[in-house]
Amino acid sequence: MENQKSTKPRVVVIGGGFGGIRAALALSKYGVKITLIDRYNYHLFQPLLYQVATAGLSVDDIAYPIRAIVKEKKNIDFRLAKVTGVDFENKTVLMDTGTVNYDYLVIAAGGMTNYFGMKSVEENSFGMKTLDESVIIRNHILSMFELAAHEKDADKRRAFLTFVIVGGGPTGVESAGALSELVYHVLTKEYHHINFKEARIVLVEASDKLLAAMPESLREATVETLISKRVEVRMCVQVTDYDGQRLTLKGGEVIPTNTVVWGAGVRAIDLMDNLGVEQGSMRRVVVNEYLQIPNHPEAFVIGDAAHFMQDERPLPMIAPVAMQQADVAAKNIDNLLKNKELKKFAYRDVGSMATIGRNAAVVQMGNFKTHGFFAWAIWCFVHVLRLINFRNRAVVFSKWVWDYLVYERVVRIITRK
Amino acid sequence: MENQKSTKPRVVVIGGGFGGIRAALALSKYGVKITLIDRYNYHLFQPLLYQVATAGLSVDDIAYPIRAIVKEKKNIDFRLAKVTGVDFENKTVLMDTGTVNYDYLVIAAGGMTNYFGMKSVEENSFGMKTLDESVIIRNHILSMFELAAHEKDADKRRAFLTFVIVGGGPTGVESAGALSELVYHVLTKEYHHINFKEARIVLVEASDKLLAAMPESLREATVETLISKRVEVRMCVQVTDYDGQRLTLKGGEVIPTNTVVWGAGVRAIDLMDNLGVEQGSMRRVVVNEYLQIPNHPEAFVIGDAAHFMQDERPLPMIAPVAMQQADVAAKNIDNLLKNKELKKFAYRDVGSMATIGRNAAVVQMGNFKTHGFFAWAIWCFVHVLRLINFRNRAVVFSKWVWDYLVYERVVRIITRK
Repeated sequence: MENQKSTKPRVVVIGGGFGGIRAALALSKYGVKITLIDRYNYHLFQPLLYQVATAGLSVDDIAYPIRAIVKEKKNIDFRLAKVTGVDFENKTVLMDTGTVNYDYLVIAAGGMTNYFGMKSVEENSFGMKTLDESVIIRNHILSMFELAAHEKDADKRRAFLTFVIVGGGPTGVESAGALSELVYHVLTKEYHHINFKEARIVLVEASDKLLAAMPESLREATVETLISKRVEVRMCVQVTDYDGQRLTLKGGEVIPTNTVVWGAGVRAIDLMDNLGVEQGSMRRVVVNEYLQIPNHPEAFVIGDAAHFMQDERPLPMIAPVAMQQADVAAKNIDNLLKNKELKKFAYRDVGSMATIGRNAAVVQMGNFKTHGFFAWAIWCFVHVLRLINFRNRAVVFSKWVWDYLVYERVVRIITRK
Repeated sequence: MENQKSTKPRVVVIGGGFGGIRAALALSKYGVKITLIDRYNYHLFQPLLYQVATAGLSVDDIAYPIRAIVKEKKNIDFRLAKVTGVDFENKTVLMDTGTVNYDYLVIAAGGMTNYFGMKSVEENSFGMKTLDESVIIRNHILSMFELAAHEKDADKRRAFLTFVIVGGGPTGVESAGALSELVYHVLTKEYHHINFKEARIVLVEASDKLLAAMPESLREATVETLISKRVEVRMCVQVTDYDGQRLTLKGGEVIPTNTVVWGAGVRAIDLMDNLGVEQGSMRRVVVNEYLQIPNHPEAFVIGDAAHFMQDERPLPMIAPVAMQQADVAAKNIDNLLKNKELKKFAYRDVGSMATIGRNAAVVQMGNFKTHGFFAWAIWCFVHVLRLINFRNRAVVFSKWVWDYLVYERVVRIITRK
């Protein structure tokens, strides 16, 4: 309720991810005051979370303080808070720490792991959508090797050394590739008592495709590369249950394992469920062609939280969509202020890419497609450039070069019990 | 109980700190098998913990996997376990995960925070002896600024912004200097709603000296530098109670604060209390001139865990003592194996140094003493060199250069709630 004396309209932006940060920075050029809210004090470069989980990068390499990003913009006020609801009637955002009024609202609250209602899987497997979750995975994987090193029971040892990744999208494929390199290039040198033939990395995918958005030749290259890295690729296989010890697949097959990483689905964050507005696929909020919530023209939704139809399909939950929508939502708030006509949103496809490890990636941009070393170089280049801060870029780049030259992963510390 | 078939004697080393790692590596040259036990899987460069607590370095910059350190030594076996006791009668080390037999034992278990029996202080203040504790301090300090940014009650706000560090040794002095730079050089630029005149950094010391081991001119330079960095230096002041909100000093003065960092004392780790052997000052185990436990000639104690008298005083609990003792203990085990005369231990003073922040440090080595920029350059050089791995050195060095040039602290992320 503060700072209501100023006559400038207030825009509240919920979420400090790719969409929210971009929207706040775009809005800062217009004559508005902005309150940017996130439950964390940092912006997270989610596409590299799997490298934290596999001990290649440390947490601060891919996280950057939101206040540092917006410090030059005096009209952006940051609030560290968890949003619990929105009162559209009174134009108020409800937080765990209080309330804040708005004239315009941008909801860029992002996504969360989707377990499709499987409670046992949700309770016992590892999600990988937050920084904490990635660190927990890293700690867990390294602990499994410590346990295996002194375990005499062969069955228990094999379960410690079996790592199942569920989901054949970019998260699953990249995690499997990175885990293979951690296990077979780095840890082999240090666990002299472990027989690495007992180790298994299994990638499970329900459909008949890995990286479904990619053209067929790249999908095939992906499977071949993973197999060459000793990843067992299991397609057309559905998970039905996981009790923490035994992963059950449809048809009854059981894989004994202490580690299941769940990368098989994303949905809009649960905040969307209690806004009282129409939701589309993956619980996302249905928006109109201007990214507004129907009946609430002052409220925009962008990114993973928004269900936007284009070419008769909802847009995918990826960063480029969120960032392009951020620009249009910010522009449309300015248009509303100036009584100008609103701009329609249309997504321009920027292609997609995924890395499968050392010298191996797949890249598709328009009609251009490539895989292997050149694709891997493009992938590294693009991802380093997209990191938000020069120092982060320099550190991440130097770590990648180091790991490449000496087959090392230095972040192999177990930080919590 | 494993690997007892080999005829080579087994040496168990408890602790992967400066003393334990050095002892294990020294022993690996002799004809013995070594089991190195630590409750963490990493070696920690404790002298830089305060830089993690003040957001200058990240956890993996000062922690390095023990398995990576010893991977070339095939006769060193690492065990991730917490030692719970020693059965000297049966020459067995008891761990939370099982037992291991030894022919020779090196106890290098280190120290822990000493609260001198003040329960309220122990419960409500922050210790800074482990990596986790440093991260908790960082998260807490940053959270205080987030709370203060939106707190209307002036008393509460001032308590959020008051940071008390207890202890005028290197830990306290270095923490106070680093915190001053974080607050007044970095955070001032980002919390536009905070009046930094409400912030206080207070360094409390019970005696009339900061850095008591230093010559007088350097002690005076230390106080002057801290004051110029807006640190309130309070000497001859004892803490009597802290309830989490109010710090009570002897004489009745009360400082309202949500943050007390306790750097006022160290003692040998509590494992030493249940060995059933004689303990000296700070609960350390009394050893003879060869570093053996009297009556247990096959058991050596080194570093913070050992009470060793020299020039009628117990040696200080610092890394150089531990490392010099490691070499002698390893040599004496070899001497015992070869029925040779044991070597007496004598500590060679290597001097001491402390940094108080940007361009400011104090350095004393023998008769040489200096302070200011040159001392600070020496401090940086020595500490970077002492980091255990080339990559860590390169990353830490580049972070210091970066922070120096742009007055930045990039690790300002709150990782846990």
